[in-house]
Amino acid sequence: MNKIIEARIEADPNLPVIRTVRDFTAEPAQLFRAHTDPVLFAKWVGPDATTTRIDAWDARTGGSWRYVSLVNGVEYAFHGCFHDVRPDRIVQTFTFEGEPEGVVLETMWFDDLGDGRTRLRTQSLVDSIEARDGLLRSGMEVGINEGYAKLERMLNDGTA
Amino acid sequence: MNKIIEARIEADPNLPVIRTVRDFTAEPAQLFRAHTDPVLFAKWVGPDATTTRIDAWDARTGGSWRYVSLVNGVEYAFHGCFHDVRPDRIVQTFTFEGEPEGVVLETMWFDDLGDGRTRLRTQSLVDSIEARDGLLRSGMEVGINEGYAKLERMLNDGTA
Repeated sequence: MNKIIEARIEADPNLPVIRTVRDFTAEPAQLFRAHTDPVLFAKWVGPDATTTRIDAWDARTGGSWRYVSLVNGVEYAFHGCFHDVRPDRIVQTFTFEGEPEGVVLETMWFDDLGDGRTRLRTQSLVDSIEARDGLLRSGMEVGINEGYAKLERMLNDGTA
Repeated sequence: MNKIIEARIEADPNLPVIRTVRDFTAEPAQLFRAHTDPVLFAKWVGPDATTTRIDAWDARTGGSWRYVSLVNGVEYAFHGCFHDVRPDRIVQTFTFEGEPEGVVLETMWFDDLGDGRTRLRTQSLVDSIEARDGLLRSGMEVGINEGYAKLERMLNDGTA
């Protein structure tokens, strides 16, 4: 039976920010690769019911990305650019193209816990408390937890 | 004698956001070009005492940029990526490389006032109130007002 590990997902009480924390039994370099290699990324990102097709991907500082998620026959497209890509931290932008005025500044940190484990921390910054609460209500926790569970399985069975 | 026009520069009281507003006697397309053409941009950006050298520039959705400002013989480098480049709005990231952990999400809107004038609105979003107040204390108003005055002269004399 699988142990269910949920990410900690918290809105900052005073800022338009959502933070998540999730530990993995893997080296930081493996987590970094799972976020920068498009073939690996497409395999784990999003809810179980989602299939992801990468349209554009250049995971380096100054590069950009676009992918399309297929859920129950409906396509949802997302795009952004990579502001900084470093082994310990990625900063990128994120827009769901169905709401093109909304932009999220996403930061991911790969913290080496020193015992073969890595703490993955993320921060999503938007420009209003309403946009923050809209993200929270969007069902993001399903995509995060199901996606990270897929990623963990891939790390465990050597496919990531 | 030149009329001094200052941009309105305001911190949001509750958000890590700084907004500026400045009207120009020019069409939105001219303002857009002055923000996307690297030769024009380098001529007006920053305080009068600054010379700007463009290192990288690809002003399209998913592109990136880097420039170096020379002030009193000292170089200051900045970089970012273009999240969205549209005639009415540009969204891009911004980091001063002397403080590499700091990232600003910048949005510029070119609002057509319908009488040959354009309202340039900007929003700078950071992830803490301290970072917002640090930007305010950085002397940004000098760069904004002297830069926009240069831009206005270029628009008036037909060089932008």
